[in-house]
Amino acid sequence: MNFTEKLVNVSRQNNSLLCVGLDPDPALIPPGVDVVEFNRQIIEATSDLVCAYKPNFAFFESLGTDGMVTLERTLKHIPGHIPIIADAKRGDIGNTARKYASAIFDVLGCDAATVNPYLGHDSVEPFIDYAGKGVFLLCHTSNAGAADFQQLRCRPKGDRKTIPLFEIVAMKASEWNVRGNIGLVVGATQPEPLKRVRELCPDMPLLIPGIGSQGGDLTWAVKYGVDGNGQRAILNASRQVLYASKGKDFASAARNEAIKLRDDINLVLGV
Amino acid sequence: MNFTEKLVNVSRQNNSLLCVGLDPDPALIPPGVDVVEFNRQIIEATSDLVCAYKPNFAFFESLGTDGMVTLERTLKHIPGHIPIIADAKRGDIGNTARKYASAIFDVLGCDAATVNPYLGHDSVEPFIDYAGKGVFLLCHTSNAGAADFQQLRCRPKGDRKTIPLFEIVAMKASEWNVRGNIGLVVGATQPEPLKRVRELCPDMPLLIPGIGSQGGDLTWAVKYGVDGNGQRAILNASRQVLYASKGKDFASAARNEAIKLRDDINLVLGV
Repeated sequence: MNFTEKLVNVSRQNNSLLCVGLDPDPALIPPGVDVVEFNRQIIEATSDLVCAYKPNFAFFESLGTDGMVTLERTLKHIPGHIPIIADAKRGDIGNTARKYASAIFDVLGCDAATVNPYLGHDSVEPFIDYAGKGVFLLCHTSNAGAADFQQLRCRPKGDRKTIPLFEIVAMKASEWNVRGNIGLVVGATQPEPLKRVRELCPDMPLLIPGIGSQGGDLTWAVKYGVDGNGQRAILNASRQVLYASKGKDFASAARNEAIKLRDDINLVLGV
Repeated sequence: MNFTEKLVNVSRQNNSLLCVGLDPDPALIPPGVDVVEFNRQIIEATSDLVCAYKPNFAFFESLGTDGMVTLERTLKHIPGHIPIIADAKRGDIGNTARKYASAIFDVLGCDAATVNPYLGHDSVEPFIDYAGKGVFLLCHTSNAGAADFQQLRCRPKGDRKTIPLFEIVAMKASEWNVRGNIGLVVGATQPEPLKRVRELCPDMPLLIPGIGSQGGDLTWAVKYGVDGNGQRAILNASRQVLYASKGKDFASAARNEAIKLRDDINLVLGV
């Protein structure tokens, strides 16, 4: 079973397009609660409500040199049928990209990874060579800085008219998608780019961050994000779920927040 | 002492613009030699010949979840006066970028980092906020994939004419360089982009990979890479030095290769 099949299966089973981002921040976790135990309780409280989990590598790396051990111990608590999207945003030249892909897929056993496209095809290829894994290329991100380069109007080779860089990334992603395992990261904070990317790539899984604390409009994120079957949109919330309560009731508060988000998404979908 | 001062000091002391990349690959290290011990011997054999070391995080991450411990133990062997450039190519939205910066600068104590600019200013800012550290933005990389996006002709905002994306990155880097700690990564494999970037950013440190196994032309890399004082170019070789011999004489072979590269660079400079 490849990544997209695994994703759609869980999404149907849990009736959910919600992904919970695992961004463990010791400054926000209740005092005295260990990071792995915090993650374990978050997972236990939400695993029937999500279509995927998305560990954010930065938060684990900043814990110390044993951060990847903490991540590995966290991942063991995720039920095997739920896909794990490694949010690591790697991107390097071929022989180095192979090592990054191996670290994420072989060492940690994740089901998908986020990859930065700036270095071009040979930086992406070692990831897509893992045919059963998903590869989400950063396309139009949820932050203000998306305007700096991603929205620049560029001229595709052999063309006279200019289009935004993120659209060229989406078109290249389609061209490179020989194994059918490429997806795109498109933030929820601006509806128009999301709409445009879904038009360009009608069948690709889209990872859509920014619906929670970042303030993206859920209605448009869902409407524009899903494919023709109301699937293949992965709507991610991290802080809004993880830190719904800063007290000892964090797990039940996270569950309530995840239910609310899942139901809000389904309300838009009319399911 | 900030990163650039540290770099120029060592460069003068060792009369060298050579950076040795630390890309430990168990498949290429002599059998029975531990990775840290391999790195230690490489460092010991070259520390009077380099201006910096550049550990490539992918190679450490792919060793296993204790890869960062192996990196940390490696870094302890680098003499304190030699700058360490963390080649991690991170890039994420603000609150995540802060965690990546902390992992590299606070946890590991590196002197500089490579950062992918695709997510724009707020993804770079948490790195440059460490005023004493160096931040190398990927500009024009050494791989074939550089043509896919970096060389696309784009129209800067408010402008009518198009210029290559990597030039816009170089110009943005200048604009963002309020703390004077930004540098750029420009591959040695194509002389013209390097020449152009040096024209746009006459004073920035340039990290120039691709002179060894990747086949970049050393003469032009040096001529176009240095600033007006013949400094601030960091010419990186990894495999060519590390794996000069696959036998037990790897350290002395690495030393010989580093001497050759350093001297070849200095021959071009006429020093």
